[in-house]
Order: sequence, then C-alpha cells, then structure tokens
Amino acid sequence: MSDLPKAVFIKEEGPREGFQFEKGDIPTARKIELIDSLSKTGLKEIQVVSFVPGKNVPGMADADAVVAGLHQAAGVSYLGMWLNEKGLLRAIASKKLEIKAGLMLTASETFLLSNQKRTLQENLEAVSRMADLYIDLGVPMHRVSIAAAFGCNFEGEVPPSKVIQLIKQLLDIAAQRGRDIGTIFLADTMAWATPQAIKRLVGDVRDEWPDKTISLHLHDTRGMGIVNAYAGLEMGVTHFDAAVGGLGGCPFAAHKGAAGNLCTEDFVFLCEELGIETGVNIEALLESARLAEDIVGHPLPGSVKSGGALTTLRRKLQPT
Amino acid sequence: MSDLPKAVFIKEEGPREGFQFEKGDIPTARKIELIDSLSKTGLKEIQVVSFVPGKNVPGMADADAVVAGLHQAAGVSYLGMWLNEKGLLRAIASKKLEIKAGLMLTASETFLLSNQKRTLQENLEAVSRMADLYIDLGVPMHRVSIAAAFGCNFEGEVPPSKVIQLIKQLLDIAAQRGRDIGTIFLADTMAWATPQAIKRLVGDVRDEWPDKTISLHLHDTRGMGIVNAYAGLEMGVTHFDAAVGGLGGCPFAAHKGAAGNLCTEDFVFLCEELGIETGVNIEALLESARLAEDIVGHPLPGSVKSGGALTTLRRKLQPT
Repeated sequence: MSDLPKAVFIKEEGPREGFQFEKGDIPTARKIELIDSLSKTGLKEIQVVSFVPGKNVPGMADADAVVAGLHQAAGVSYLGMWLNEKGLLRAIASKKLEIKAGLMLTASETFLLSNQKRTLQENLEAVSRMADLYIDLGVPMHRVSIAAAFGCNFEGEVPPSKVIQLIKQLLDIAAQRGRDIGTIFLADTMAWATPQAIKRLVGDVRDEWPDKTISLHLHDTRGMGIVNAYAGLEMGVTHFDAAVGGLGGCPFAAHKGAAGNLCTEDFVFLCEELGIETGVNIEALLESARLAEDIVGHPLPGSVKSGGALTTLRRKLQPT
Repeated sequence: MSDLPKAVFIKEEGPREGFQFEKGDIPTARKIELIDSLSKTGLKEIQVVSFVPGKNVPGMADADAVVAGLHQAAGVSYLGMWLNEKGLLRAIASKKLEIKAGLMLTASETFLLSNQKRTLQENLEAVSRMADLYIDLGVPMHRVSIAAAFGCNFEGEVPPSKVIQLIKQLLDIAAQRGRDIGTIFLADTMAWATPQAIKRLVGDVRDEWPDKTISLHLHDTRGMGIVNAYAGLEMGVTHFDAAVGGLGGCPFAAHKGAAGNLCTEDFVFLCEELGIETGVNIEALLESARLAEDIVGHPLPGSVKSGGALTTLRRKLQPT
C-alpha cells in the first residue's frame, strides 16, 4: 500500500526561516539560545542564518554575530544561506558553517519577474555564474532545487513537466562543469501542493532519475504541511526541511498570521508514531519549540508542543 | 494507489464542540450568529448544542435558547446531543432539531471509570436502557459509536479487535430490538490516531461489515487531524465530523491551547483540491471561521482562514 522509509533526515530551518520572517528586533543572544537548544535535540543539520543585506532583511542583519556566537555540538552540521558571491564569502569567512551549495531555479517566471526582477533566462545565467564560482572556490554542489515546484500565486499550478525541464537545465549546468549532483530538492514555496500533487511530481522525478535523492521543502500556509509530508513518506521520500514550532511564514499568504514551514516537532511526532526513525528526541525538541515561542513572543502554529507527545503518556502507562 | 471517494458528507460540530469547550461567557445571540452563518455555507448538518446540565457545562446552559433563536435554512439539518433521557426530552421539545440517536461505547474502561465513574458493563446496561427509550419514543437509531477508538491517555493504544467487539455489542443491542444500524462511527477522542492506525482500523471494520457506512470523528490535538482524515479518504471513508476554525479542544491535552477538532475549512480545502465534492462554499466557510474567531476572542487553529484558499487566486489568474 505504501513505501514508508525506515528513517528520515531532517534539515532544521527554524532559525533562518523564522528570524528572517519575524517582525521586531530579536536579540542575537536569543537567536543563539535557540540554535544551541536545537543542537541538543538530535537534529543533524541546522540552517542558522541567511547572509543577505540587513537593509533588505533586518532579521538577518546580525547573521555573522549569530554564527560567531553559536556553540557547535558534535555531530551537528550548521548551514547558512546566500544568494550571491558576497553572501557566500561571508558564509565561508564565518569558519563554523558547512559550506555546500545548491543550484536553484524558480518554476514560475511571473513570480521571478515580480519577486526578483529577472527572467528565467537571466536566472539560468546567474546560476551558471554561481556554479563557476563554486568550482573556483572548491565549494561542493550538492543539490539542484526548484522553488514554487507545485504552484504559484501568480501563475497557478505548475505542471510537473516544467519542473522536470528545469531540473534538467540545472543538472546540465553542473554536468558541463564535470559535476554530478545527487539530490533533487522540490520546494512548495507558496503552499500549492496537495498529497496527490506530491505523489505525482515525486513519481515523475523518480521515474526520470531513479538514483537521485529527493528532498522536500513544504509550507503549512494552508494547513497541508503534515499531510503533504506524509504523501512524501508514502512515496519513500527520506529528506525533509522543517522549522521548529512551525516558525517561518509566507509573505504571499492572504492574511497576516498564516502558518509557516512544516513544523519539525509535529513531523517528528508523525514519523516516530509511524515507526520511522528521525534520530530526534521529541521531548527535547518540544522544549526548543516552546523556547522558540518565547523568543518570538507570540503563539507558533505547531500542535504537539501544546497537545503533548505520546511518549510521556506511554511511559506512565508502563508497569514499573 | 488509493480509493478516494467522489464526495464527502461533513457534519459540522463547531457550535457544540466549541462553545462547550470555550471558557468565558459567550452571549446566546453570538452563538446563533455563528450557526446562522454556517447555515449559508452549504453544510448540510450542523450539531448546534448539547443538552447537558449548565452546572456541568456552563457553555451549554443556554442550549434551549440557542435552538429557539437559530434561523432554519432550507436543506440544513440541525442536531443536538444528549447523554440521558432528560437531555433527549429537551432536544425533542425544541422542535427544530432532527432527532436521531447513536449508541455509544468508550473503548477504554480506565477512561470510563475516571471520566464517567462507570464500568464497561454498566455502560452497556445504560446504552440498552437508552435503546429501549428510543424504541418507546420512536427515535431512529442511526449509528453505533466508539469513543477513544484509537487510543487513550489512560490505557494507551486500543487494539482494533477490542473496537470490533464493542461495535458487535452495540449492533446486538439494536438487533435485539429489531433495528439494523447502518453507520459505524469511530472517534479519536484523545488524538492517538495515526494515518496507519486509521487505515488498519477502518480496514478491519470494513472487512467485518462491508456494507456499513464508516464515519470518522478526529481531533487535531497533536496536529494529525488532516493527515488522519486523508488516510480515511484514502480508505474511501465518506463521512466526517469537523469543527469550523478548528473549534473545540481536548480536556486531556498536555497544555492549554491545544488544537481542537478537525478543522472544517482546512478539510474542505483538502477535499476540494483533491477533486472530492463537499457541497461547501469554501469562501463562505472562511467567513464563518473568521466569525468564530471573533466570537471566541482568541486565535483558532485553522490554517486556511489565514493562508487563504486557492479558489480566489485561481479566479484572478483566469483570463477574463
């Protein structure tokens, strides 16, 4: 009936997605507090900052200080995000981050034009230049990524054939530079995915590239984060992005207060209850989620932090 | 791969589940306002009140006045809940409700003892007495219901075999009185269900009674409401309870503020996006959800009311 994986790998994006999205000044020390808390949960990869200009994204103005201040835990890889050479050089200079690059295209040209003032062709050229830079600097390229892979508020549903075509273009850019990229990353940037759309696109991508790893980045803007992740699990997907507490958000949502990214602890709860290993201690993660809520100063959408995990209840039920 | 139904039937329980659970005094007129708003959404069945003593459930103290004040819409059936003869007689006296009865047992005896101070045997006897009363009063018995059908905070996972046994006992009570009940109602009262548990129990119940309708009552306490509903849809389940805005809650959740019932508008969104008819106008329902939030005076957990449905976006994208 389904092909659930034995284990999943979760990239935590709460600090980056969350503090990038939140309004209001959050002290650097508190950002570090959340990252340090997440480092003790069993999560293996945490995306901590985005190296973008503070004038564009005020919440990321202290990115260098956040990285400088975080306490590296054994076995945890810390990641940063960048959009151009300047950001990449900052990431490298921080010394504490694992530097690996993705090649990304956005599936919707209307969105590109509106959001980045670029055509798809211009974007392809920009990606090619970044790929040259990665080669020059010896930065590994580990994945190709498609944003708005399921749909776009400006263009509607995105056909899987278009996503496949863009993936090919990105893989070609890498291949022309002698690189073979092993991971295909599909992002539901504007929360258009449904479980059936997940199954269709993942199926089509897997038919085309049976040996590559598929990774999903899901948003919960319309409450479909968990069910879409489940559809991914049913298709055997093993790599997921998530954000503690459901941090993050969508600037394109209809109303303020729309839910953010797939919530890490709710997803960990689902996986563990399905018998899928996550390597994460859910109770430690629930503490991080409550800390995140305290730091941002308003309720976050995750449910398990309020509803409670079942592990504690089960322990009480065990005969002693 | 899956057996999605063509259409689903949703029983709206927001007014009953919600106003029963909310702390604080909500004026009768505002309860009626929500019911009247829901009456214009295309929902065909709305459970509006529970006839329980106001001293036990203050939010239901004005149940008779709520029913007296609501404006009946054509094609909408209004339902009430009761736990004993006194409640049933109040429901009948209201004149405006469709009177149909369910026979209910709780799968966890520990829960029963703690919550209702009854053993399972005492509960069976009480159900038998109610069944006699339904026969005497000519009240149709339309379903057998199992509460805590997936698990219980006091007893842990409930094995499907136990649920099957209880269903048989209830069907026997009806059969002994010459009644054949067509619907089996499974309630995840304390939010222990997972998609796999839904598939297993629904599968087992259907194997036993292939011709009966299965109905699911799901809670979102741990964020699994939508994914569990989806698992039900994949098993071909057509009847669901839901609560607008995600009203309701679980008195057994670990923390205050835990999510309530399966959220009606998020579920309608999922169904419509999957091509499953609900008969509900999602935009009218989103207005009801925002009204519900205004009436209770705090954020409700539903996501689509903040994230926005896709219908509006698609309409804008249509070439005019």
